[in-house]
Amino acid sequence: MKWEDNVRKVVPYVAGEQPQKKGIIKLNTNECPYPPSPKVEGRMKQMDYQDLRLYPEFSEKTMLSDMLVSYHGIGKEQIFIGVGSDDVLSMAFLTFFNSDKPVFFPDITYSFYDVWAEVYGIPYEVKPLDDDFCIRREDYLKENGGIVFPNPNAPTGVFMDVSEIEEIIAANRDVVVIVDEAYIDFGGTSALPLINKYDNLLIVRTFSKSRAMAGARIGYAMGNERLIRYLNDVKYSVNSYTMNRMALELGAACMEDDAYFKEICSKIIATRERTAKELTALGFTFPPSYGNFIFAAHNKVKAQDIFEKLKKHDIYVRYWNKPRIDNYLRITIGTDEQMDALFAALREILA
Amino acid sequence: MKWEDNVRKVVPYVAGEQPQKKGIIKLNTNECPYPPSPKVEGRMKQMDYQDLRLYPEFSEKTMLSDMLVSYHGIGKEQIFIGVGSDDVLSMAFLTFFNSDKPVFFPDITYSFYDVWAEVYGIPYEVKPLDDDFCIRREDYLKENGGIVFPNPNAPTGVFMDVSEIEEIIAANRDVVVIVDEAYIDFGGTSALPLINKYDNLLIVRTFSKSRAMAGARIGYAMGNERLIRYLNDVKYSVNSYTMNRMALELGAACMEDDAYFKEICSKIIATRERTAKELTALGFTFPPSYGNFIFAAHNKVKAQDIFEKLKKHDIYVRYWNKPRIDNYLRITIGTDEQMDALFAALREILA
Repeated sequence: MKWEDNVRKVVPYVAGEQPQKKGIIKLNTNECPYPPSPKVEGRMKQMDYQDLRLYPEFSEKTMLSDMLVSYHGIGKEQIFIGVGSDDVLSMAFLTFFNSDKPVFFPDITYSFYDVWAEVYGIPYEVKPLDDDFCIRREDYLKENGGIVFPNPNAPTGVFMDVSEIEEIIAANRDVVVIVDEAYIDFGGTSALPLINKYDNLLIVRTFSKSRAMAGARIGYAMGNERLIRYLNDVKYSVNSYTMNRMALELGAACMEDDAYFKEICSKIIATRERTAKELTALGFTFPPSYGNFIFAAHNKVKAQDIFEKLKKHDIYVRYWNKPRIDNYLRITIGTDEQMDALFAALREILA
Repeated sequence: MKWEDNVRKVVPYVAGEQPQKKGIIKLNTNECPYPPSPKVEGRMKQMDYQDLRLYPEFSEKTMLSDMLVSYHGIGKEQIFIGVGSDDVLSMAFLTFFNSDKPVFFPDITYSFYDVWAEVYGIPYEVKPLDDDFCIRREDYLKENGGIVFPNPNAPTGVFMDVSEIEEIIAANRDVVVIVDEAYIDFGGTSALPLINKYDNLLIVRTFSKSRAMAGARIGYAMGNERLIRYLNDVKYSVNSYTMNRMALELGAACMEDDAYFKEICSKIIATRERTAKELTALGFTFPPSYGNFIFAAHNKVKAQDIFEKLKKHDIYVRYWNKPRIDNYLRITIGTDEQMDALFAALREILA
């Protein structure tokens, strides 16, 4: 059909499976195994459905925005809120990577980066991680149109020290550097304090992992006021109201409960360390993880085989049939009980 | 700062004011004056906050999607769901208007169209409405990169007959024609049946007006399966999960209550007709409206004066200081009581 000539043709990102089957152990999309804070439940019961007839408030003028500002000790003009960190990152790509020079990101990383580059027509170059899955700083010191990487990296879990990140930012003052901190709450140290030193740094966060609210779709970014203003200009050129009233309210309720947040992060970290020991005993190797997942290869059995066999045990983990990582499984850290079920299944599969 | 060279610089859309003051009469953003269906309240109380830890289902595989498909009697592959019709339209611009030829839309129309064209770098030409604010079909018969217009048009309220729309679609089989039916439920006839005849037609709807759920951010599009597939490819290249769990659930609950939906639409239409009589008596002229608003000019007093004075009465209507429409007010149809307050204020202002 002739109209198809004008269509933007893209190969979309493929998210992890969302099986609807009951009783499965879902360790494939890095969701939190614990429910959100009970404060979220309380707020849900208090919401007035009649308010839904009215448009929401502008995201940056909400209670949620105020709470994030105060929690992180940043300025009111230093925050941007979006529909999960995917929305925030997508907007940031569209806003800041508007150059003829290639954007740089690692070869093994969040697999949405090249998809965003393709959909917005942004040139890019991937920079191979070293054999330990570490970012090679020297790769990021060449002329480029912008830089983006997660820290800790996904799906590897590898954490880069903030001093190394600072070197990259300092060497690239003429472009925007995005540090995607989706997994920062599981033991890493944030680069956030650098936003007041470097006006070209954008830090991105999500409620989907450590805050147990993947279903509410909340993400945010922090940076220099001017950076945030540009981001908002593009956002308000796409959709005035991206955050619905329910997400704004429940997100604010979540932020009220720091004790619960700290508790679930600690539990996940403890389970991760226990899982690391068990996986080692089972013959897996993996880089030390700072995320709520472990990226592991077995010394004898192929990842794809294990992946398929775990499914038959109703245990879903993540597998990518891609160069360099096609012998690895990304295993989300669940509850201790879920991990025990995983170890039992693995013992059976590997026997 | 050097990084600013790479920034996409745009002039964002400016939505109507969202004053937080209590007790104001808000007739400025075409919200519904009635609350959503009580079924929405019921569903809100049943929602399990624990589910929020999990990502939502993919929008086109939800109960909401099923209900829209069955309500409109279309195929399962003919629906696309987004974060309000703004998200749907924005995605459609990005997906379908990917040509060097200009996209056509009216000069007086939804003022987001040129903003989307600018942010995505889409060439466009505006086509002046005639003196009665009607679309001149002949303007849309020249070579173009796509066509978009609302029916009924906003902010004029003017409705174009489906047979005339069909002429435009039939004459433009080589591009996509988007008919934005945000206001179709207030008396107009939908072009929806044409989607099975013309594979280049996309119909866009919203829950923000007739379904009283502006705060939930739900919109959708219907069209040929192939059109919808392209749209989903772009959407899944931007954000896998745009609809949060709450919106998906509450949207489905809303669709369960067709009697309530019909009742509030009838009430708004009745109040609109009463408002039309009163405004005429007060010296206003306006095209016949098929929306939940009236676009009116006064025969003596300037629109901007009335706009400012109404604000002092705590009544907000919409005013644009733009060529051709700078003597018009767009007045949302509220409840009968709200309109009585408006008439009283107008009588005082115009006296």
